[in-house]
Amino acid sequence: MSVPTPDRPFYRAHVFVCTNVRPPGHKRGCCAEKGAERLRNYMKVRARELGLADTRINLAGCLDRCELGPCLVVYPDGIWYRYGNEADIDEILERHLVEGAPVERLMLHPDQMPPDA
Amino acid sequence: MSVPTPDRPFYRAHVFVCTNVRPPGHKRGCCAEKGAERLRNYMKVRARELGLADTRINLAGCLDRCELGPCLVVYPDGIWYRYGNEADIDEILERHLVEGAPVERLMLHPDQMPPDA
Repeated sequence: MSVPTPDRPFYRAHVFVCTNVRPPGHKRGCCAEKGAERLRNYMKVRARELGLADTRINLAGCLDRCELGPCLVVYPDGIWYRYGNEADIDEILERHLVEGAPVERLMLHPDQMPPDA
Repeated sequence: MSVPTPDRPFYRAHVFVCTNVRPPGHKRGCCAEKGAERLRNYMKVRARELGLADTRINLAGCLDRCELGPCLVVYPDGIWYRYGNEADIDEILERHLVEGAPVERLMLHPDQMPPDA
């Protein structure tokens, strides 16, 4: 690269939680219908309670992995998760964001496609 | 880390454009009032026209650098930009996302704070 890149990220952990809404019955489904907004709000509150510095829990538009959702991605690590409930969110926060150890059982891998793709 | 992390990101370039809306007159301002939604849509269309593979131009909630906005961040690089118009978006797409060379004149650095902070 021809210009210097930052030596550290602005956020140590920048989480994007898909909260995209599609009409009921859409064949791809959407994260919103699986509780994404509620669980994103939960994650934001819990991150604050845990005192996580330099961490932000953002909402995002469609991340285009709808069939595998509800999903979120943690940058700059580039690690994706499918979560289902508050316990999953707690595990991602406490294991990945606090301890730095990704939660393998919830991870979506780069080559992971929908079951019927 | 105790578990393997992905050897490649799901998206080669994952761009998050803040499109947060605040009430008119809010002291922090917001990206929406500076044309963020229009320019995010422009960026999405132009990225497609450029045939950028493995790239996604997402909208995002408040990235909390409001006073410096309108802003966007490119992950996994972790490079932030303040853009103002279509020409800035073109330059970010063509220089950073196509050629891999960040656009220094538009970059927001990690220690960059609002002028009156």
